[in-house]
Amino acid sequence: MTSANKTNPVEDAERIVAVAHRLADAARAETLSLFRSPALRPDNKAATGFDPVTEADRASERAMRAILAAERPEDAILGEEYGAQAGRSGLTWVLDPIDGTRAFMAGAPSWGVLIGLSDARGPIYGIVDQPHLDERFEGGLGHARLISGRGTVPLRARRGVALAQATLMTTYPEVGDPAEHAAFSRVAARARLVRYGLDCYAYALLAAGHVDLVIEAGLQPYDVAAPIAVIQAAGGVVTDWQGGPAHGGGTILAAGSQELHAEALALLKGD
Amino acid sequence: MTSANKTNPVEDAERIVAVAHRLADAARAETLSLFRSPALRPDNKAATGFDPVTEADRASERAMRAILAAERPEDAILGEEYGAQAGRSGLTWVLDPIDGTRAFMAGAPSWGVLIGLSDARGPIYGIVDQPHLDERFEGGLGHARLISGRGTVPLRARRGVALAQATLMTTYPEVGDPAEHAAFSRVAARARLVRYGLDCYAYALLAAGHVDLVIEAGLQPYDVAAPIAVIQAAGGVVTDWQGGPAHGGGTILAAGSQELHAEALALLKGD
Repeated sequence: MTSANKTNPVEDAERIVAVAHRLADAARAETLSLFRSPALRPDNKAATGFDPVTEADRASERAMRAILAAERPEDAILGEEYGAQAGRSGLTWVLDPIDGTRAFMAGAPSWGVLIGLSDARGPIYGIVDQPHLDERFEGGLGHARLISGRGTVPLRARRGVALAQATLMTTYPEVGDPAEHAAFSRVAARARLVRYGLDCYAYALLAAGHVDLVIEAGLQPYDVAAPIAVIQAAGGVVTDWQGGPAHGGGTILAAGSQELHAEALALLKGD
Repeated sequence: MTSANKTNPVEDAERIVAVAHRLADAARAETLSLFRSPALRPDNKAATGFDPVTEADRASERAMRAILAAERPEDAILGEEYGAQAGRSGLTWVLDPIDGTRAFMAGAPSWGVLIGLSDARGPIYGIVDQPHLDERFEGGLGHARLISGRGTVPLRARRGVALAQATLMTTYPEVGDPAEHAAFSRVAARARLVRYGLDCYAYALLAAGHVDLVIEAGLQPYDVAAPIAVIQAAGGVVTDWQGGPAHGGGTILAAGSQELHAEALALLKGD
Protein backbone atom coordinates (compact mmCIF):
# COMPACT_ATOMS: atom_id res chain seq x y z
CA MET A 1 0.00 0.00 0.00
CA THR A 2 1.28 3.48 -0.89
CA SER A 3 -0.10 6.98 -0.89
CA ALA A 4 -0.47 6.91 -4.68
CA ASN A 5 -4.22 7.41 -4.25
CA LYS A 6 -3.93 10.96 -3.01
CA THR A 7 -6.26 11.95 -5.84
CA ASN A 8 -9.00 9.95 -4.11
CA PRO A 9 -9.20 11.31 -0.57
CA VAL A 10 -12.01 8.98 0.52
CA GLU A 11 -10.20 5.88 -0.57
CA ASP A 12 -7.02 7.09 1.08
CA ALA A 13 -8.96 7.81 4.27
CA GLU A 14 -10.22 4.25 4.41
CA ARG A 15 -6.71 2.94 3.83
CA ILE A 16 -5.44 5.11 6.65
CA VAL A 17 -8.19 3.89 8.96
CA ALA A 18 -7.39 0.28 8.11
CA VAL A 19 -3.73 0.82 8.94
CA ALA A 20 -4.63 2.55 12.20
CA HIS A 21 -6.68 -0.44 13.29
CA ARG A 22 -3.79 -2.73 12.44
CA LEU A 23 -1.57 -0.59 14.67
CA ALA A 24 -4.12 -0.81 17.46
CA ASP A 25 -4.42 -4.58 17.06
CA ALA A 26 -0.65 -4.99 17.21
CA ALA A 27 -0.39 -2.76 20.28
CA ARG A 28 -3.14 -4.77 21.98
CA ALA A 29 -1.24 -7.99 21.57
CA GLU A 30 1.95 -6.51 23.00
CA THR A 31 0.33 -4.70 25.92
CA LEU A 32 -2.08 -7.44 27.00
CA SER A 33 0.71 -10.00 27.08
CA LEU A 34 2.33 -8.02 29.91
CA PHE A 35 -0.69 -6.41 31.63
CA ARG A 36 -1.03 -7.83 35.15
CA SER A 37 1.88 -10.15 34.42
CA PRO A 38 4.52 -10.93 37.04
CA ALA A 39 7.02 -10.55 34.17
CA LEU A 40 6.35 -6.79 34.07
CA ARG A 41 9.38 -4.95 35.47
CA PRO A 42 9.13 -1.16 35.23
CA ASP A 43 12.24 0.90 34.62
CA ASN A 44 12.59 4.48 35.78
CA LYS A 45 13.08 7.11 33.05
CA ALA A 46 13.42 10.02 35.48
CA ALA A 47 16.67 11.36 36.90
CA THR A 48 14.73 12.24 40.06
CA GLY A 49 11.38 10.84 41.10
CA PHE A 50 9.65 7.97 39.32
CA ASP A 51 8.70 8.08 35.63
CA PRO A 52 8.09 4.48 34.73
CA VAL A 53 8.45 2.81 31.36
CA THR A 54 8.02 -0.88 30.76
CA GLU A 55 8.89 -3.38 28.08
CA ALA A 56 5.18 -3.27 27.24
CA ASP A 57 5.49 0.41 26.26
CA ARG A 58 8.52 -0.26 24.10
CA ALA A 59 7.22 -3.44 22.47
CA SER A 60 3.89 -1.77 21.72
CA GLU A 61 5.55 1.17 19.95
CA ARG A 62 8.00 -1.06 18.06
CA ALA A 63 5.12 -3.17 16.76
CA MET A 64 3.29 -0.08 15.51
CA ARG A 65 6.41 1.40 13.91
CA ALA A 66 7.10 -1.84 12.07
CA ILE A 67 3.65 -1.71 10.45
CA LEU A 68 4.08 1.94 9.51
CA ALA A 69 7.51 1.25 7.99
CA ALA A 70 5.93 -1.32 5.71
CA GLU A 71 2.59 0.34 4.97
CA ARG A 72 3.09 4.10 5.31
CA PRO A 73 6.81 4.79 4.79
CA GLU A 74 6.06 8.29 3.49
CA ASP A 75 4.44 9.43 6.76
CA ALA A 76 6.31 10.95 9.69
CA ILE A 77 6.13 9.43 13.18
CA LEU A 78 6.25 10.96 16.64
CA GLY A 79 6.29 8.34 19.38
CA GLU A 80 6.76 8.59 23.13
CA GLU A 81 9.43 5.93 23.44
CA TYR A 82 11.36 6.14 20.14
CA GLY A 83 11.01 9.81 19.22
CA ALA A 84 10.49 11.56 15.90
CA GLN A 85 11.03 10.24 12.39
CA ALA A 86 10.67 12.55 9.41
CA GLY A 87 8.30 11.92 6.50
CA ARG A 88 7.32 13.50 3.19
CA SER A 89 3.52 13.05 3.00
CA GLY A 90 2.59 15.90 5.32
CA LEU A 91 1.00 13.40 7.71
CA THR A 92 2.41 12.43 11.11
CA TRP A 93 1.44 9.40 13.19
CA VAL A 94 1.48 10.47 16.84
CA LEU A 95 1.84 7.40 19.04
CA ASP A 96 1.65 6.82 22.76
CA PRO A 97 2.10 3.07 23.09
CA ILE A 98 0.79 3.12 26.67
CA ASP A 99 -0.77 6.29 27.99
CA GLY A 100 -1.03 5.74 31.73
CA THR A 101 1.95 3.50 32.40
CA ARG A 102 1.39 4.01 36.14
CA ALA A 103 -2.14 2.64 35.83
CA PHE A 104 -0.81 -0.20 33.69
CA MET A 105 1.66 -1.11 36.44
CA ALA A 106 -1.12 -1.03 39.03
CA GLY A 107 -3.39 -3.33 37.04
CA ALA A 108 -6.00 -0.60 36.53
CA PRO A 109 -7.70 -0.55 33.11
CA SER A 110 -7.57 3.22 32.57
CA TRP A 111 -4.41 3.14 30.44
CA GLY A 112 -4.75 3.14 26.69
CA VAL A 113 -2.96 3.00 23.38
CA LEU A 114 -3.13 6.35 21.61
CA ILE A 115 -2.85 6.50 17.84
CA GLY A 116 -3.23 9.95 16.33
CA LEU A 117 -2.76 11.20 12.80
CA SER A 118 -1.99 14.88 12.28
CA ASP A 119 -1.53 17.13 9.29
CA ALA A 120 0.07 20.56 9.40
CA ARG A 121 -2.97 22.02 11.16
CA GLY A 122 -3.36 19.39 13.86
CA PRO A 123 -5.00 16.02 14.56
CA ILE A 124 -7.37 14.72 11.88
CA TYR A 125 -7.93 11.19 13.16
CA GLY A 126 -7.39 9.22 16.33
CA ILE A 127 -7.90 5.96 18.18
CA VAL A 128 -8.02 5.63 21.97
CA ASP A 129 -7.85 1.90 22.56
CA GLN A 130 -8.38 0.14 25.91
CA PRO A 131 -7.31 -3.44 25.26
CA HIS A 132 -8.31 -4.99 28.59
CA LEU A 133 -11.86 -3.69 28.21
CA ASP A 134 -11.91 -4.43 24.48
CA GLU A 135 -13.03 -0.85 23.85
CA ARG A 136 -11.77 1.13 20.88
CA PHE A 137 -12.82 4.78 20.62
CA GLU A 138 -12.27 6.16 17.13
CA GLY A 139 -12.82 9.61 15.65
CA GLY A 140 -12.06 11.49 12.45
CA LEU A 141 -11.94 10.79 8.70
CA GLY A 142 -15.68 10.28 8.75
CA HIS A 143 -15.84 8.12 11.87
CA ALA A 144 -16.99 8.71 15.46
CA ARG A 145 -17.60 5.35 17.07
CA LEU A 146 -16.90 2.98 19.93
CA ILE A 147 -16.10 -0.53 18.79
CA SER A 148 -16.23 -3.16 21.54
CA GLY A 149 -17.26 -6.70 22.29
CA ARG A 150 -20.74 -5.28 22.90
CA GLY A 151 -20.96 -3.98 19.32
CA THR A 152 -20.33 -0.64 17.63
CA VAL A 153 -22.07 2.52 18.76
CA PRO A 154 -21.75 6.15 17.67
CA LEU A 155 -19.73 8.51 19.85
CA ARG A 156 -21.52 11.71 20.74
CA ALA A 157 -20.38 14.15 23.40
CA ARG A 158 -23.08 15.24 25.85
CA ARG A 159 -24.60 18.70 25.33
CA GLY A 160 -26.82 20.94 27.38
CA VAL A 161 -24.94 20.43 30.65
CA ALA A 162 -23.98 23.54 32.59
CA LEU A 163 -20.91 23.53 34.85
CA ALA A 164 -23.06 23.23 37.98
CA GLN A 165 -24.32 19.87 36.70
CA ALA A 166 -21.10 18.74 35.04
CA THR A 167 -18.78 15.81 35.73
CA LEU A 168 -15.14 16.88 35.52
CA MET A 169 -12.15 14.54 35.29
CA THR A 170 -8.41 14.94 35.63
CA THR A 171 -5.69 12.39 36.29
CA TYR A 172 -3.48 13.90 38.98
CA PRO A 173 -4.95 15.80 41.95
CA GLU A 174 -2.08 18.30 41.77
CA VAL A 175 -2.99 18.85 38.05
CA GLY A 176 0.16 20.83 37.25
CA ASP A 177 2.15 23.59 38.91
CA PRO A 178 0.56 25.57 41.78
CA ALA A 179 -0.87 28.24 39.46
CA GLU A 180 -2.35 25.56 37.23
CA HIS A 181 -3.77 23.82 40.28
CA ALA A 182 -5.41 27.06 41.38
CA ALA A 183 -6.95 27.58 37.94
CA PHE A 184 -8.23 24.01 37.87
CA SER A 185 -9.67 24.45 41.36
CA ARG A 186 -11.75 27.42 40.23
CA VAL A 187 -13.52 25.14 37.77
CA ALA A 188 -13.65 22.12 40.08
CA ALA A 189 -15.30 24.13 42.85
CA ARG A 190 -18.29 24.77 40.56
CA ALA A 191 -18.62 21.32 38.99
CA ARG A 192 -21.09 18.81 40.42
CA LEU A 193 -18.66 15.92 40.40
CA VAL A 194 -14.85 15.71 40.13
CA ARG A 195 -13.11 12.40 39.50
CA TYR A 196 -9.42 11.55 39.35
CA GLY A 197 -7.03 8.99 37.98
CA LEU A 198 -8.37 7.84 34.61
CA ASP A 199 -5.59 8.89 32.22
CA CYS A 200 -6.68 8.83 28.56
CA TYR A 201 -9.83 6.92 29.41
CA ALA A 202 -11.30 10.17 30.71
CA TYR A 203 -11.15 11.62 27.18
CA ALA A 204 -12.82 8.52 25.82
CA LEU A 205 -15.63 8.87 28.35
CA LEU A 206 -16.10 12.49 27.32
CA ALA A 207 -16.38 11.51 23.66
CA ALA A 208 -18.91 8.85 24.66
CA GLY A 209 -21.09 11.38 26.48
CA HIS A 210 -20.55 10.18 30.06
CA VAL A 211 -18.22 12.95 31.25
CA ASP A 212 -18.54 16.66 30.48
CA LEU A 213 -15.07 18.12 31.07
CA VAL A 214 -11.47 16.94 31.15
CA ILE A 215 -8.89 19.48 32.29
CA GLU A 216 -5.19 18.62 32.52
CA ALA A 217 -1.77 20.22 32.38
CA GLY A 218 1.81 19.15 31.75
CA LEU A 219 0.92 17.12 28.68
CA GLN A 220 3.02 16.06 25.70
CA PRO A 221 1.83 16.11 22.07
CA TYR A 222 1.54 12.31 22.03
CA ASP A 223 -0.78 12.47 25.07
CA VAL A 224 -3.36 14.59 23.25
CA ALA A 225 -3.34 14.07 19.47
CA ALA A 226 -5.62 11.02 19.42
CA PRO A 227 -7.96 12.26 22.19
CA ILE A 228 -8.40 15.61 20.40
CA ALA A 229 -9.39 13.89 17.16
CA VAL A 230 -11.82 11.53 18.90
CA ILE A 231 -13.48 14.25 20.97
CA GLN A 232 -13.82 16.67 18.05
CA ALA A 233 -15.33 13.94 15.89
CA ALA A 234 -17.85 13.30 18.68
CA GLY A 235 -18.85 16.96 18.69
CA GLY A 236 -16.78 18.09 21.65
CA VAL A 237 -14.51 21.12 21.90
CA VAL A 238 -10.80 20.98 22.81
CA THR A 239 -8.37 23.85 23.33
CA ASP A 240 -5.57 24.78 25.68
CA TRP A 241 -6.31 26.99 28.70
CA GLN A 242 -5.98 30.13 26.60
CA GLY A 243 -8.50 28.93 24.03
CA GLY A 244 -5.86 28.12 21.41
CA PRO A 245 -4.88 24.81 19.80
CA ALA A 246 -4.05 22.05 22.30
CA HIS A 247 -2.19 19.58 20.11
CA GLY A 248 1.22 21.00 20.95
CA GLY A 249 0.90 19.75 24.53
CA GLY A 250 0.87 21.68 27.79
CA THR A 251 -2.60 22.44 29.10
CA ILE A 252 -5.87 21.04 27.80
CA LEU A 253 -9.54 21.85 28.27
CA ALA A 254 -11.92 19.38 26.66
CA ALA A 255 -15.66 19.94 26.90
CA GLY A 256 -18.81 18.30 25.60
CA SER A 257 -20.22 21.56 24.24
CA GLN A 258 -19.16 25.03 23.17
CA GLU A 259 -21.18 26.60 25.99
CA LEU A 260 -19.60 24.49 28.72
CA HIS A 261 -16.17 25.05 27.20
CA ALA A 262 -16.69 28.82 27.40
CA GLU A 263 -17.85 28.59 31.01
CA ALA A 264 -14.79 26.59 32.06
CA LEU A 265 -12.35 28.63 29.96
CA ALA A 266 -13.40 31.87 31.64
CA LEU A 267 -12.66 30.36 35.06
CA LEU A 268 -9.32 28.90 33.95
CA LYS A 269 -8.26 32.31 32.62
CA GLY A 270 -9.47 33.99 35.80
CA ASP A 271 -11.74 36.31 33.81
CA MET B 1 -32.82 -24.09 50.93
CA THR B 2 -32.61 -23.64 54.70
CA SER B 3 -29.87 -23.57 57.29
CA ALA B 4 -30.79 -27.07 58.48
CA ASN B 5 -27.32 -28.30 57.50
CA LYS B 6 -25.53 -26.39 60.24
CA THR B 7 -24.07 -29.73 61.37
CA ASN B 8 -22.19 -29.88 58.08
CA PRO B 9 -20.25 -26.63 57.83
CA VAL B 10 -18.63 -27.45 54.47
CA GLU B 11 -21.92 -28.17 52.81
CA ASP B 12 -23.41 -25.04 54.29
CA ALA B 13 -20.42 -23.03 53.06
CA GLU B 14 -20.98 -24.18 49.51
CA ARG B 15 -24.66 -23.34 49.76
CA ILE B 16 -23.77 -19.87 51.00
CA VAL B 17 -21.29 -19.41 48.17
CA ALA B 18 -23.89 -20.48 45.62
CA VAL B 19 -26.39 -17.97 47.01
CA ALA B 20 -23.75 -15.21 46.99
CA HIS B 21 -23.09 -15.81 43.30
CA ARG B 22 -26.81 -15.67 42.61
CA LEU B 23 -26.89 -12.29 44.36
CA ALA B 24 -23.98 -11.08 42.26
CA ASP B 25 -25.59 -12.31 39.05
CA ALA B 26 -28.84 -10.53 39.90
CA ALA B 27 -27.01 -7.31 40.76
CA ARG B 28 -25.10 -7.51 37.48
CA ALA B 29 -28.29 -7.61 35.47
CA GLU B 30 -29.74 -4.61 37.28
CA THR B 31 -26.61 -2.48 37.21
CA LEU B 32 -25.52 -3.20 33.64
CA SER B 33 -28.98 -2.35 32.31
CA LEU B 34 -28.44 1.24 33.51
CA PHE B 35 -24.65 1.64 33.24
CA ARG B 36 -23.85 4.26 30.58
CA SER B 37 -27.57 4.52 29.82
CA PRO B 38 -29.22 7.84 29.05
CA ALA B 39 -32.06 6.59 31.27
CA LEU B 40 -29.82 6.95 34.35
CA ARG B 41 -30.98 9.91 36.44
CA PRO B 42 -29.11 10.34 39.70
CA ASP B 43 -30.92 11.65 42.77
CA ASN B 44 -29.16 13.52 45.54
CA LYS B 45 -29.25 11.89 49.01
CA ALA B 46 -27.40 14.70 50.74
CA ALA B 47 -28.99 17.71 52.44
CA THR B 48 -25.93 19.72 51.40
CA GLY B 49 -23.46 18.82 48.65
CA PHE B 50 -23.95 15.92 46.27
CA ASP B 51 -24.35 12.30 47.43
CA PRO B 52 -25.78 10.53 44.43
CA VAL B 53 -28.00 7.47 44.38
CA THR B 54 -29.55 6.01 41.27
CA GLU B 55 -32.31 3.59 40.41
CA ALA B 56 -29.50 1.19 39.57
CA ASP B 57 -28.37 1.20 43.23
CA ARG B 58 -31.89 0.59 44.46
CA ALA B 59 -32.84 -2.05 41.89
CA SER B 60 -29.57 -3.90 42.51
CA GLU B 61 -30.17 -4.07 46.27
CA ARG B 62 -33.84 -5.03 45.87
CA ALA B 63 -32.89 -7.91 43.57
CA MET B 64 -30.37 -9.22 46.10
CA ARG B 65 -32.79 -8.87 49.03
CA ALA B 66 -35.47 -10.79 47.13
CA ILE B 67 -33.11 -13.74 46.71
CA LEU B 68 -32.08 -13.64 50.37
CA ALA B 69 -35.74 -13.50 51.47
CA ALA B 70 -36.37 -16.72 49.58
CA GLU B 71 -33.12 -18.57 50.19
CA ARG B 72 -31.67 -17.29 53.48
CA PRO B 73 -34.59 -15.88 55.51
CA GLU B 74 -32.79 -16.67 58.77
CA ASP B 75 -29.84 -14.38 58.00
CA ALA B 76 -29.69 -10.67 58.83
CA ILE B 77 -29.09 -8.04 56.15
CA LEU B 78 -27.32 -4.68 56.21
CA GLY B 79 -27.66 -2.81 52.93
CA GLU B 80 -26.68 0.69 51.89
CA GLU B 81 -30.00 1.66 50.36
CA TYR B 82 -32.58 -0.26 52.43
CA GLY B 83 -30.91 -0.49 55.82
CA ALA B 84 -30.78 -3.26 58.43
CA GLN B 85 -33.00 -6.31 58.77
CA ALA B 86 -32.62 -8.59 61.79
CA GLY B 87 -31.93 -12.32 61.53
CA ARG B 88 -31.51 -15.31 63.83
CA SER B 89 -28.66 -17.33 62.24
CA GLY B 90 -25.80 -15.18 63.52
CA LEU B 91 -24.86 -14.35 59.93
CA THR B 92 -25.35 -10.96 58.28
CA TRP B 93 -25.23 -10.19 54.55
CA VAL B 94 -23.57 -6.82 54.12
CA LEU B 95 -24.55 -5.34 50.76
CA ASP B 96 -23.42 -2.33 48.79
CA PRO B 97 -25.41 -2.58 45.58
CA ILE B 98 -23.11 -0.07 43.84
CA ASP B 99 -19.93 0.97 45.58
CA GLY B 100 -18.72 3.99 43.60
CA THR B 101 -21.98 5.49 42.41
CA ARG B 102 -20.05 8.57 41.25
CA ALA B 103 -17.86 6.40 39.00
CA PHE B 104 -20.99 4.60 37.80
CA MET B 105 -22.52 7.95 36.81
CA ALA B 106 -19.34 8.91 34.97
CA GLY B 107 -19.20 5.68 32.97
CA ALA B 108 -15.97 4.59 34.67
CA PRO B 109 -15.69 0.86 35.42
CA SER B 110 -14.22 1.19 38.93
CA TRP B 111 -17.57 0.79 40.70
CA GLY B 112 -18.54 -2.61 42.00
CA VAL B 113 -21.18 -4.67 43.72
CA LEU B 114 -20.08 -5.61 47.24
CA ILE B 115 -21.51 -8.73 48.87
CA GLY B 116 -20.11 -9.54 52.29
CA LEU B 117 -21.09 -12.14 54.86
CA SER B 118 -20.20 -11.50 58.49
CA ASP B 119 -20.53 -13.42 61.71
CA ALA B 120 -20.22 -11.92 65.18
CA ARG B 121 -16.47 -11.49 64.76
CA GLY B 122 -16.47 -9.86 61.32
CA PRO B 123 -16.44 -10.68 57.62
CA ILE B 124 -15.99 -14.35 56.73
CA TYR B 125 -16.73 -14.20 53.00
CA GLY B 126 -17.03 -11.61 50.28
CA ILE B 127 -17.50 -10.87 46.60
CA VAL B 128 -16.28 -7.71 44.85
CA ASP B 129 -17.95 -7.87 41.45
CA GLN B 130 -17.20 -5.57 38.49
CA PRO B 131 -19.96 -6.32 35.99
CA HIS B 132 -18.73 -4.21 33.06
CA LEU B 133 -15.33 -5.92 33.17
CA ASP B 134 -16.89 -9.32 33.90
CA GLU B 135 -14.52 -9.68 36.86
CA ARG B 136 -15.64 -11.28 40.12
CA PHE B 137 -13.19 -11.26 43.01
CA GLU B 138 -14.15 -13.76 45.71
CA GLY B 139 -12.62 -14.62 49.05
CA GLY B 140 -13.45 -16.66 52.15
CA LEU B 141 -15.13 -19.99 52.98
CA GLY B 142 -12.26 -21.77 51.27
CA HIS B 143 -12.07 -19.57 48.18
CA ALA B 144 -9.66 -16.87 46.97
CA ARG B 145 -10.18 -16.44 43.26
CA LEU B 146 -10.88 -14.10 40.36
CA ILE B 147 -13.55 -15.41 38.02
CA SER B 148 -13.73 -13.62 34.66
CA GLY B 149 -14.26 -14.13 30.99
CA ARG B 150 -10.55 -14.94 30.82
CA GLY B 151 -10.96 -17.89 33.21
CA THR B 152 -10.51 -18.40 36.95
CA VAL B 153 -7.23 -17.59 38.67
CA PRO B 154 -6.20 -17.66 42.33
CA LEU B 155 -6.03 -14.38 44.23
CA ARG B 156 -2.78 -13.80 46.07
CA ALA B 157 -1.71 -10.49 47.56
CA ARG B 158 1.84 -9.41 46.68
CA ARG B 159 4.48 -9.87 49.35
CA GLY B 160 8.04 -8.70 49.79
CA VAL B 161 7.35 -5.10 48.74
CA ALA B 162 8.66 -2.36 51.03
CA LEU B 163 6.89 1.01 51.19
CA ALA B 164 9.57 2.67 49.04
CA GLN B 165 8.63 0.31 46.20
CA ALA B 166 4.90 0.15 46.90
CA THR B 167 1.87 1.24 44.89
CA LEU B 168 -0.71 2.96 47.11
CA MET B 169 -4.32 3.66 46.20
CA THR B 170 -7.10 5.76 47.65
CA THR B 171 -10.30 7.08 46.09
CA TYR B 172 -10.52 10.74 47.13
CA PRO B 173 -7.43 13.01 47.17
CA GLU B 174 -8.71 14.67 50.35
CA VAL B 175 -8.94 11.14 51.93
CA GLY B 176 -10.91 12.28 54.98
CA ASP B 177 -10.70 15.19 57.42
CA PRO B 178 -7.53 17.34 57.52
CA ALA B 179 -5.89 15.20 60.22
CA GLU B 180 -6.65 12.05 58.24
CA HIS B 181 -5.27 13.68 55.11
CA ALA B 182 -2.06 14.53 56.96
CA ALA B 183 -1.70 10.95 58.18
CA PHE B 184 -2.30 9.59 54.69
CA SER B 185 0.24 12.02 53.27
CA ARG B 186 2.94 10.68 55.59
CA VAL B 187 2.54 7.28 53.94
CA ALA B 188 2.01 8.63 50.42
CA ALA B 189 5.24 10.64 50.57
CA ARG B 190 7.20 7.42 51.00
CA ALA B 191 5.36 5.23 48.48
CA ARG B 192 6.71 4.81 44.95
CA LEU B 193 3.37 5.36 43.26
CA VAL B 194 0.05 6.84 44.47
CA ARG B 195 -3.11 6.44 42.42
CA TYR B 196 -6.60 7.84 42.97
CA GLY B 197 -10.20 7.26 42.06
CA LEU B 198 -10.76 3.50 41.89
CA ASP B 199 -13.36 2.92 44.63
CA CYS B 200 -13.71 -0.76 45.58
CA TYR B 201 -11.72 -1.85 42.56
CA ALA B 202 -8.57 -0.76 44.40
CA TYR B 203 -9.21 -3.47 47.02
CA ALA B 204 -9.72 -6.03 44.28
CA LEU B 205 -6.40 -5.06 42.69
CA LEU B 206 -4.69 -5.45 46.07
CA ALA B 207 -6.15 -8.94 46.50
CA ALA B 208 -4.95 -9.78 42.98
CA GLY B 209 -1.38 -8.69 43.77
CA HIS B 210 -1.18 -5.59 41.56
CA VAL B 211 -1.42 -2.94 44.28
CA ASP B 212 0.30 -3.02 47.67
CA LEU B 213 -1.67 -0.62 49.86
CA VAL B 214 -5.17 0.87 50.02
CA ILE B 215 -5.73 3.57 52.65
CA GLU B 216 -9.09 5.29 53.05
CA ALA B 217 -11.22 7.07 55.64
CA GLY B 218 -14.86 7.95 56.15
CA LEU B 219 -16.09 4.48 55.24
CA GLN B 220 -19.29 2.67 56.14
CA PRO B 221 -19.50 -1.01 57.16
CA TYR B 222 -21.04 -1.93 53.78
CA ASP B 223 -18.04 -0.35 52.01
CA VAL B 224 -15.55 -2.67 53.65
CA ALA B 225 -17.07 -6.05 54.64
CA ALA B 226 -16.62 -7.74 51.26
CA PRO B 227 -13.19 -6.17 50.51
CA ILE B 228 -11.89 -7.28 53.92
CA ALA B 229 -12.96 -10.88 53.33
CA VAL B 230 -11.47 -10.97 49.83
CA ILE B 231 -8.15 -9.40 50.84
CA GLN B 232 -7.73 -11.59 53.92
CA ALA B 233 -8.47 -14.71 51.86
CA ALA B 234 -5.76 -13.58 49.43
CA GLY B 235 -3.24 -13.32 52.27
CA GLY B 236 -3.43 -9.58 52.82
CA VAL B 237 -3.82 -7.70 56.09
CA VAL B 238 -6.63 -5.24 56.86
CA THR B 239 -7.12 -3.09 59.98
CA ASP B 240 -8.22 0.42 60.83
CA TRP B 241 -5.56 3.12 61.33
CA GLN B 242 -5.11 2.07 64.97
CA GLY B 243 -4.44 -1.55 64.06
CA GLY B 244 -7.87 -2.74 65.21
CA PRO B 245 -10.74 -4.35 63.28
CA ALA B 246 -11.86 -2.35 60.23
CA HIS B 247 -15.25 -3.88 59.54
CA GLY B 248 -17.13 -1.30 61.59
CA GLY B 249 -16.22 1.40 59.07
CA GLY B 250 -14.23 4.60 59.49
CA THR B 251 -10.59 4.27 58.50
CA ILE B 252 -8.98 1.36 56.70
CA LEU B 253 -5.45 0.23 55.99
CA ALA B 254 -5.16 -2.74 53.65
CA ALA B 255 -1.75 -4.15 52.82
CA GLY B 256 -0.36 -7.04 50.83
CA SER B 257 1.86 -8.22 53.68
CA GLN B 258 2.22 -7.96 57.44
CA GLU B 259 5.56 -6.17 57.06
CA LEU B 260 4.19 -3.48 54.74
CA HIS B 261 1.13 -3.10 56.94
CA ALA B 262 3.36 -2.43 59.95
CA GLU B 263 5.43 0.12 58.01
CA ALA B 264 2.34 2.05 56.91
CA LEU B 265 0.58 1.75 60.28
CA ALA B 266 3.50 3.36 62.10
CA LEU B 267 3.32 6.36 59.75
CA LEU B 268 -0.47 6.66 60.03
CA LYS B 269 -0.20 6.67 63.82
CA GLY B 270 2.63 9.21 63.67
CA ASP B 271 4.90 6.88 65.67
